[in-house]
Amino acid sequence: MPVCEFPDTQDKEPEIPISLNKVGVTGVKKLLKINRKNKRPIILLPTFNAYVNLPSTQKGSHMSRNPEAITEVVDEAINEPEIHLETICSNLVKKLLEKHEYAISAETEVKSEYVIHKLSPVTNKKTEETTTIIARALATKDEEGNINVRKMIGAEVVGMTVCPCAQESVVKDSREKLLEFLDEQTTEKVLNTVTFASHNQRGRGTILLEVAEEEEVNVDDLIKIIQDSMSSQVCEILKRPDENKIVTNAHNNPVFVEDCVRNMVKGILDYYPNLSNDSTVTFKQVNEESIHQHNAFAEKTSSLGQLKKELGRD
Amino acid sequence: MPVCEFPDTQDKEPEIPISLNKVGVTGVKKLLKINRKNKRPIILLPTFNAYVNLPSTQKGSHMSRNPEAITEVVDEAINEPEIHLETICSNLVKKLLEKHEYAISAETEVKSEYVIHKLSPVTNKKTEETTTIIARALATKDEEGNINVRKMIGAEVVGMTVCPCAQESVVKDSREKLLEFLDEQTTEKVLNTVTFASHNQRGRGTILLEVAEEEEVNVDDLIKIIQDSMSSQVCEILKRPDENKIVTNAHNNPVFVEDCVRNMVKGILDYYPNLSNDSTVTFKQVNEESIHQHNAFAEKTSSLGQLKKELGRD
Amino acid sequence: MPVCEFPDTQDKEPEIPISLNKVGVTGVKKLLKINRKNKRPIILLPTFNAYVNLPSTQKGSHMSRNPEAITEVVDEAINEPEIHLETICSNLVKKLLEKHEYAISAETEVKSEYVIHKLSPVTNKKTEETTTIIARALATKDEEGNINVRKMIGAEVVGMTVCPCAQESVVKDSREKLLEFLDEQTTEKVLNTVTFASHNQRGRGTILLEVAEEEEVNVDDLIKIIQDSMSSQVCEILKRPDENKIVTNAHNNPVFVEDCVRNMVKGILDYYPNLSNDSTVTFKQVNEESIHQHNAFAEKTSSLGQLKKELGRD
Amino acid sequence: MPVCEFPDTQDKEPEIPISLNKVGVTGVKKLLKINRKNKRPIILLPTFNAYVNLPSTQKGSHMSRNPEAITEVVDEAINEPEIHLETICSNLVKKLLEKHEYAISAETEVKSEYVIHKLSPVTNKKTEETTTIIARALATKDEEGNINVRKMIGAEVVGMTVCPCAQESVVKDSREKLLEFLDEQTTEKVLNTVTFASHNQRGRGTILLEVAEEEEVNVDDLIKIIQDSMSSQVCEILKRPDENKIVTNAHNNPVFVEDCVRNMVKGILDYYPNLSNDSTVTFKQVNEESIHQHNAFAEKTSSLGQLKKELGRD
Repeated sequence: MPVCEFPDTQDKEPEIPISLNKVGVTGVKKLLKINRKNKRPIILLPTFNAYVNLPSTQKGSHMSRNPEAITEVVDEAINEPEIHLETICSNLVKKLLEKHEYAISAETEVKSEYVIHKLSPVTNKKTEETTTIIARALATKDEEGNINVRKMIGAEVVGMTVCPCAQESVVKDSREKLLEFLDEQTTEKVLNTVTFASHNQRGRGTILLEVAEEEEVNVDDLIKIIQDSMSSQVCEILKRPDENKIVTNAHNNPVFVEDCVRNMVKGILDYYPNLSNDSTVTFKQVNEESIHQHNAFAEKTSSLGQLKKELGRD
Repeated sequence: MPVCEFPDTQDKEPEIPISLNKVGVTGVKKLLKINRKNKRPIILLPTFNAYVNLPSTQKGSHMSRNPEAITEVVDEAINEPEIHLETICSNLVKKLLEKHEYAISAETEVKSEYVIHKLSPVTNKKTEETTTIIARALATKDEEGNINVRKMIGAEVVGMTVCPCAQESVVKDSREKLLEFLDEQTTEKVLNTVTFASHNQRGRGTILLEVAEEEEVNVDDLIKIIQDSMSSQVCEILKRPDENKIVTNAHNNPVFVEDCVRNMVKGILDYYPNLSNDSTVTFKQVNEESIHQHNAFAEKTSSLGQLKKELGRD
Repeated sequence: MPVCEFPDTQDKEPEIPISLNKVGVTGVKKLLKINRKNKRPIILLPTFNAYVNLPSTQKGSHMSRNPEAITEVVDEAINEPEIHLETICSNLVKKLLEKHEYAISAETEVKSEYVIHKLSPVTNKKTEETTTIIARALATKDEEGNINVRKMIGAEVVGMTVCPCAQESVVKDSREKLLEFLDEQTTEKVLNTVTFASHNQRGRGTILLEVAEEEEVNVDDLIKIIQDSMSSQVCEILKRPDENKIVTNAHNNPVFVEDCVRNMVKGILDYYPNLSNDSTVTFKQVNEESIHQHNAFAEKTSSLGQLKKELGRD
Repeated sequence: MPVCEFPDTQDKEPEIPISLNKVGVTGVKKLLKINRKNKRPIILLPTFNAYVNLPSTQKGSHMSRNPEAITEVVDEAINEPEIHLETICSNLVKKLLEKHEYAISAETEVKSEYVIHKLSPVTNKKTEETTTIIARALATKDEEGNINVRKMIGAEVVGMTVCPCAQESVVKDSREKLLEFLDEQTTEKVLNTVTFASHNQRGRGTILLEVAEEEEVNVDDLIKIIQDSMSSQVCEILKRPDENKIVTNAHNNPVFVEDCVRNMVKGILDYYPNLSNDSTVTFKQVNEESIHQHNAFAEKTSSLGQLKKELGRD
């Protein structure tokens, strides 16, 4: 039975001639092998969303082409000696425009768990942490058929945040009580010696960074920038001296949710001072406050050029 | 102990002078009583997100003011003889700008489960359906201190969608087989008599509609528009004749994910032909395809003016 | 069209004559008004699961009877001057056995968000906290048709936990450093004055308690017992002095995940020393460790009689 | 700084001397490489829960030993030429008892996404489906120090279910209407030719099967048994003839949620007629009803011996 003999309901005219911005599939999981130069390949199981626009003259999009496009792009990636997730997204939006001849825009989002390996800070135990890597791409086709692609790479990482405000109030309390039996100089010495309490909690930092065609950004750098923006990293295996070190370090480095975002901004400009000024980047931090049921949230979206200007680095 | 004696860590200068777009709280739940004219009041338990911007000169936002603002706005709402959720959001962003004197923009999003009452289609059993209502507001303050507010109201509703494409192919198959023992005219008569199979599934339609200061939109209308855009409503209590009616009706009204969005567009313009052309509206449909693990998705975002133009109603 | 004219597919013999333990519906949401003596009624939107067993001779269960039974029981509850959620569950399993004449066991589980009102600890700000209340009931019918019902009531509550182990190691560190410039006596005085850091986080405590027919347990007591078992309560609105108090109190009361469970055990026996020894109770605590991505977990399931014996209270 | 110098808070006596059933960690993710004879190894990223009991004389469990035990067991698995997930669980509970010398019971649960490869039914497109595999193990140590281990393997798989009851009522309707213009014999012929509508939806089937020490069960068999118990498999890539085939086949094989469970029971006894009669097995099916917001549910838990007796195969 030839494939083409079934009716093409999608190609009919719709009764309500409205064009649609995005039509496609969400939640397509696909095993992906990423080759890396001089390193072992990585196996991921990302979830793909993939969309194209739909003109007002077409009843339906040919949806089955979207998981097919994902499969083809993933299969082709295996032959690359080195490939990045954002490049796979970029290839995917181009392929979507090929397969949907009526489309002039295509979009894809990909998320995947990604394991990093590290050592606990004192006893050097091997431990694995799970992060989420994110990539996106958008393609638009102009009237001459030229295709413009924007691609983005990012990550979401869990760390630990210690509240500076609660800690300052605990220090203030202690200072007053210490001054009742110690002189000022000794009190200050004690304050500088002791690790004071605060509330602390899991935080989730996210960066999503646009990269131009010729630019290269390493997702491991992004993960490191996010981790270093919080009071401390977290770690799946911690023996007692490791736990002590993490708790002490974190309390010596208290940060607001706002500080996390600003630290990420600085981190990106420090690691990658030469990325295109036109590229857009989003930074986001969510802290799961241990004193509340609600979360604290901060976000910055900007062009890299604007960020450099704000920090006087332009 | 006076409140003010603790240090105001938030008011310090940040080390990294970057302004932030959104700082605030997410996931604040708050009981809310909404009075309605000539109807019983409604009790909701919405979840609020509430943010303001933060200048580059301020280390932290005073977060506790956000849940306080939510409480105040909810407490004031009780005194209104009739109030809409989007108006509460509008009041909230204004209050956020009052409380955060350094802020020039504020944003809030609210979601709440909302129960509607209906009758099963044949046996008229009383049944309750759970929908989600959504509201948002954004406020900006210009240099003269004038505040501009945009507010939005919407809903997310579950219904049933039947795929027209799979059904057409089933009809085609049957026609061929029927023609082996029936003449053409009888075959067509059979085809018009029988309810043919297709794949069908839960779909989730969403509308989020901007309303101008003086305009009134009823969220129950939005819920009805969304329900009517799918192949059929769903119903928590269905006796056998009800189930038969729903299955038959749905299969007589197969719709693509794209059709659902277009039906919602038409529904809004039919119900509310006179809303401001500048208002923005977003329509979204997600079908949990019964033949796949992934979902089908369609989205339209546009101004109402542009929608009227597309449908030739301007 | 009379209801009965459709075929009763469920009443057929199944091809594979296997009896089933539980057949029914999950995720039925239903508005519920609970009257309380001398207090305002409460509006809840619980989610119900409701099941019966199915003999090997019956192809299908008549599922639509389950949401109908839920509706009837909820409608009847409105006429009670005072009713508990576990009694509604008890009524529901009895009704399920009536409606499914072939069933000899029935089971239901209910969960609902439930808001409690409190004051912040220092500034006495009014604040609302969201808890989850849980109820279950199981009914069995013996050969003479006698029905035995067991019912349970419980809650899940978020609080804050401070790790005693990490705190002890921070104290030990500080003691050593203080002894370098202070004598032993002054050092101990300092140690008793200062609030030392530890890791702390959101914890979730759960109690599910069986209550006999004639016994009365108040879910607000259970919520209080759970809150008091952690290092501190959490609070949606906290001004600076409140935050300071919560952080300080919590760090003066560090608890392991195991301590939380043991505190809950003691709390139940203190509040309700006279409940039936045969009743079963489950205690569970999950701490969302701020130093890890994984959670800490502890659980105790026992009869009340056994608990009294363990604590020497029998 | 030597590791041992920090205080062992866990080893203290608790103030409330209550023993605990389960203390441990939940949500530990760990990359796992599973070697298979004559096949390529599989990379999984499972989530582990791991617990031991705690006596009433011990304040806390040494939690960091649990992620360490997971790491060691996963590292040792790499050296096996062939290993099953349930054996890794079995190794883990033994290791937990070694590391926690005070424990006499240990328990672990593991879940992992697991990708299977298949072809679409007509056009033979290569497609990948994501399933969840599950394993558990429980170890108990008697007074002589003998360790008894029970291990379980299972899977959760998405498929498609078509309701037989709704379909019968649609057929009945059609028969009546057809008899208005066709004779009885032709009507029956038409009824046997046409694929009639029903409601259909995603279903999720689960099997969790105990396997004795010396027995071998292949998780791919379990996945196949679950898929074949529903009306049809689902498939990520379906061209039009594939979609037609799946819809038609599914509607020729309508099943209740109860039928799915019974089909799984029969499947296990057909595939594995010789497993130990003492082994316990649980079957579960959840159908995401397209005509409701709630789900249909069925469950059977039994020993294999009892199942054989019910089917007359003992």
